[in-house]
Amino acid sequence: MDSDFGIPRELSELQKLRSLYQPELPPCLQGTTVRVEFGDATTAADVADSHTISRSFPRTYGQPLAHFLRATAKVPDAHIITEHPAMRVGIVFCGRQSPGGHNVIWGLNSALKIHNPNSTLLGFLGGSEGLFAQKTLEITDDVLSTYKNQGGYDLLGRTKDQIRTTEQVNAALTTCKDLKLDGLVIIGGVTSNTDAAQLAETFAEAKCPTKVVGVPVTLNGDLKNQFVETNVGFDTICKVNSQLISNVCTDALSAEKYYYFIRLMGRKASHVALECTLQSHPNMVILGEEVAASKLTLFDLTKQICDAVQARAEQDKYHGVILLPEGLIESIPEVYALLKEIHGLLRQGVASNNISSQLSPWASALFEFLPPFIKKQLLLYPESDDSAQLSQIETEKLLAHLVEAEMSKRLKEGTYKGKKFNAICHFFGYQARGSVPSKFDCDYAYAMMTVKRWAQSPGATSIGKPAIHPATVDLKGKAYELLRQNAVKFLMDDLYRNPGPLQFEGPGADAKPLTLCVEDQDYMGRIKELQEYLDKVRTIVKPGCSQEVLKAALSVMASVTDVLSTMSSTSLNSQTPL
Amino acid sequence: MDSDFGIPRELSELQKLRSLYQPELPPCLQGTTVRVEFGDATTAADVADSHTISRSFPRTYGQPLAHFLRATAKVPDAHIITEHPAMRVGIVFCGRQSPGGHNVIWGLNSALKIHNPNSTLLGFLGGSEGLFAQKTLEITDDVLSTYKNQGGYDLLGRTKDQIRTTEQVNAALTTCKDLKLDGLVIIGGVTSNTDAAQLAETFAEAKCPTKVVGVPVTLNGDLKNQFVETNVGFDTICKVNSQLISNVCTDALSAEKYYYFIRLMGRKASHVALECTLQSHPNMVILGEEVAASKLTLFDLTKQICDAVQARAEQDKYHGVILLPEGLIESIPEVYALLKEIHGLLRQGVASNNISSQLSPWASALFEFLPPFIKKQLLLYPESDDSAQLSQIETEKLLAHLVEAEMSKRLKEGTYKGKKFNAICHFFGYQARGSVPSKFDCDYAYAMMTVKRWAQSPGATSIGKPAIHPATVDLKGKAYELLRQNAVKFLMDDLYRNPGPLQFEGPGADAKPLTLCVEDQDYMGRIKELQEYLDKVRTIVKPGCSQEVLKAALSVMASVTDVLSTMSSTSLNSQTPL
Repeated sequence: MDSDFGIPRELSELQKLRSLYQPELPPCLQGTTVRVEFGDATTAADVADSHTISRSFPRTYGQPLAHFLRATAKVPDAHIITEHPAMRVGIVFCGRQSPGGHNVIWGLNSALKIHNPNSTLLGFLGGSEGLFAQKTLEITDDVLSTYKNQGGYDLLGRTKDQIRTTEQVNAALTTCKDLKLDGLVIIGGVTSNTDAAQLAETFAEAKCPTKVVGVPVTLNGDLKNQFVETNVGFDTICKVNSQLISNVCTDALSAEKYYYFIRLMGRKASHVALECTLQSHPNMVILGEEVAASKLTLFDLTKQICDAVQARAEQDKYHGVILLPEGLIESIPEVYALLKEIHGLLRQGVASNNISSQLSPWASALFEFLPPFIKKQLLLYPESDDSAQLSQIETEKLLAHLVEAEMSKRLKEGTYKGKKFNAICHFFGYQARGSVPSKFDCDYAYAMMTVKRWAQSPGATSIGKPAIHPATVDLKGKAYELLRQNAVKFLMDDLYRNPGPLQFEGPGADAKPLTLCVEDQDYMGRIKELQEYLDKVRTIVKPGCSQEVLKAALSVMASVTDVLSTMSSTSLNSQTPL
Repeated sequence: MDSDFGIPRELSELQKLRSLYQPELPPCLQGTTVRVEFGDATTAADVADSHTISRSFPRTYGQPLAHFLRATAKVPDAHIITEHPAMRVGIVFCGRQSPGGHNVIWGLNSALKIHNPNSTLLGFLGGSEGLFAQKTLEITDDVLSTYKNQGGYDLLGRTKDQIRTTEQVNAALTTCKDLKLDGLVIIGGVTSNTDAAQLAETFAEAKCPTKVVGVPVTLNGDLKNQFVETNVGFDTICKVNSQLISNVCTDALSAEKYYYFIRLMGRKASHVALECTLQSHPNMVILGEEVAASKLTLFDLTKQICDAVQARAEQDKYHGVILLPEGLIESIPEVYALLKEIHGLLRQGVASNNISSQLSPWASALFEFLPPFIKKQLLLYPESDDSAQLSQIETEKLLAHLVEAEMSKRLKEGTYKGKKFNAICHFFGYQARGSVPSKFDCDYAYAMMTVKRWAQSPGATSIGKPAIHPATVDLKGKAYELLRQNAVKFLMDDLYRNPGPLQFEGPGADAKPLTLCVEDQDYMGRIKELQEYLDKVRTIVKPGCSQEVLKAALSVMASVTDVLSTMSSTSLNSQTPL
């Protein structure tokens, strides 16, 4: 299995140039002196879950926020660390490969060696299986040379995506003890970071000195909160997909005879579909979050698309591009219910060709209504995270099929008088995740060890074991608002935008994800800003100031405190998870 | 239909930069003086067809080759044209959109206006239908501004791909007469250029003064011969697809658990698959030409892939990437025979659900053996060029299905002892053809009016009307030889190469197609070189030279002439079409 891992690769000219690119570090991570300010205790994303989580994570819950400071920052009580004993750290790829993974390893190796040249970084070969089997490769600058700024996870490989069963956790513990690791870094998505959080607690309980660190690297863009504004890989994935979507838009506009249905990555969350829509301006996007929130049925979705097709036909337009995330199928309430029944039966050991006869009458009726190819795909065994095998379910073909049938019906009935509806379907799944990472992802991944306390602040599911919630598209957020504002224009006016292929020089090379630009990010920056205002007031209103100033300040601050208290108690009750 | 054509587009930053790029003209097309050397009469690619072709094209066959010369060229009998009366030219997009189409229009407009500012270029809106309906847009630099160096055909659009029936040809003739066109430029692939050749003959017969010019712009890379080394669009298509293939290779190498089956564009010819293989080094490629030449059956192909999977499993490798062109399905002899039967029945009006019962026993046996999804796709009505609806036939899924079944069988029988075989299928079809064109295609398309006599030298089918042969991959050519030399290494050693995303600056931006670089091109250049040698001999051996020199020259030239005469007569009989 591991024969090919870690060997030097033959690089193309472009790859060679990219391998020479040196990512920039944020000021707070430059130099060998580390300055940390410890802040408030971390809490759960949803206050209602804090009790459950603190009970499940008695040793790791509620640790203080660590804020890394630049050399010029004036924070009197900052911890200044100048001594760095040699450390032994292990690193492992878990979960689906995403652009930027190699740079996390490179950045960590550089940081370890800068702080103490005697530190050691061990990469586990073959993902979590390599971790259990103690198969390691010592990371050196030499080993990294043909992997710097390159895509894929092929430096170390990956296998199974979980460290969860008692056997797996014990194997990880044994490895960390045997190899005398000070730290274990797990690079992965939602599931792997949930595992990392659990592992940290288990290690603490077992008094194992190895610190567990989760690094959010995933395609889906769903590992983010107020401290981690996006995850590594998302920018590249969206850039590569946007290029292809834009090409298809140009194609649609040139031939004017096809509707393209494009399924994108994105399981519980539709961030990729939203970002690509803001980048490429296709005619329509169906977000899983919208469908779930409005409880739209398959029939509703079909009608919605057909009405759009009809409205466009009235303007003599017979082409269009429609995006949807692969997770959409699970967001449709009746399909989700059907999938739950199927998965339940499969887990009971019912053979897939006997499932349909054992479904409830309602689920059976829906199942029989679906075309054969989808039936077959819905009968696939669920994945380890309980979701359906989303990459295998051709939701784009299902919708195209239903829309085609409905448009033919309208044509026959005379309610639609346009030309025949033609659909072409695409799944943009695996072709982006091995991409050479964008500059953004190179830089971000290289500097990624900043978030090492992040995995200790998981959200929770309402029943059972706490787990990290994938951050879904915030239907009250600015990115979604931007989409809604433009939805009608995008639908009717073909305002297709073409960001072009991923560039490393010139326009677009330094572009950030649009959703990141429009969302209110820099949470910590704004907290700092607020503290500066408070400090200013304190400086102005001190012994010696006039009675007028004091009275004005008192009156204003009393009402400010009042308003904020009221707002806080309201928002606690109706908080949307961040 | 034409409401959106020709309107200014909103460009992204990268597109704006691209729109400012000025393609370079070859020296022979620079300036306002045109120098042409007329050469030998053009002949058919296959000498055996020359009689048929000359009979079908009595007015346009056998015109002299026109060789454009640079200002510094010393050719005594060159025609030097300095007077350029104002011309009226029409231009139309036919066939599938390919990157670079807009630059053909831009380049032609620039050339017309440089030679005479009073010349007019009219674009037909909506492809051949616009040509028949006389819907035009006058091309100006202003109209072109947001289309320069951009992908798609959306400046003018396209509709039906043919100008062939008497009605269509007459409509085209009327348009050219009504609009008083001196020239009609048809931008398209094999079919459109066949139509262009036929139209030129018909116009000549009807004494219509409009000259018809075909410009080879197609995805497939199959419009080439010794004078046209490649067609516009091919470079971009291969670059975009190679990027995606390389990403998938990286993916395969990272997870080590999937075989990816990727279907590419390429109907009668597998140039795209060959070029992408040389660019990305996937493990295997199946070229239609190889399959047809070796008469490989579905069973042979399945066995070939399974043996490869098994050989890799013995090296503990359970991943791989396999490319195939969409035309492969028609290259498999027994499937081709089946398709012919199906298409015959469909043309007789037999409903698709009645076809299977009316097939010959042999065809019926094959049909029943195939999985349902392929059956359905094979039953689709053939396209206007008589081929199956190749973009709709998922040959990659068929092969993955057959390989999976065979590997399971081998596993059960114990002849294969490795892990379960897992396949993921992709069709890289429509996502590349709307791409922003590469620098190569921008330059090449802009300079494309050099080949205006090209359409008058068509190959011929053996029966019926002459048509342009798509140039297939030459199994004796250097590009194929390079592939064969590396095939085993590519298969076993995962020498994946990643040219990266299409760049416009830095490494790779100026890369040419590899097949173009390795093939013996520059045919005309080498003919010139030969002529220079002959001239040198003439200069050396002239009255006044010594007897020894004269004798040596005579003796050498006698044997040279002898050898070449023998070689020529042999190669005439066994010539591979160029």
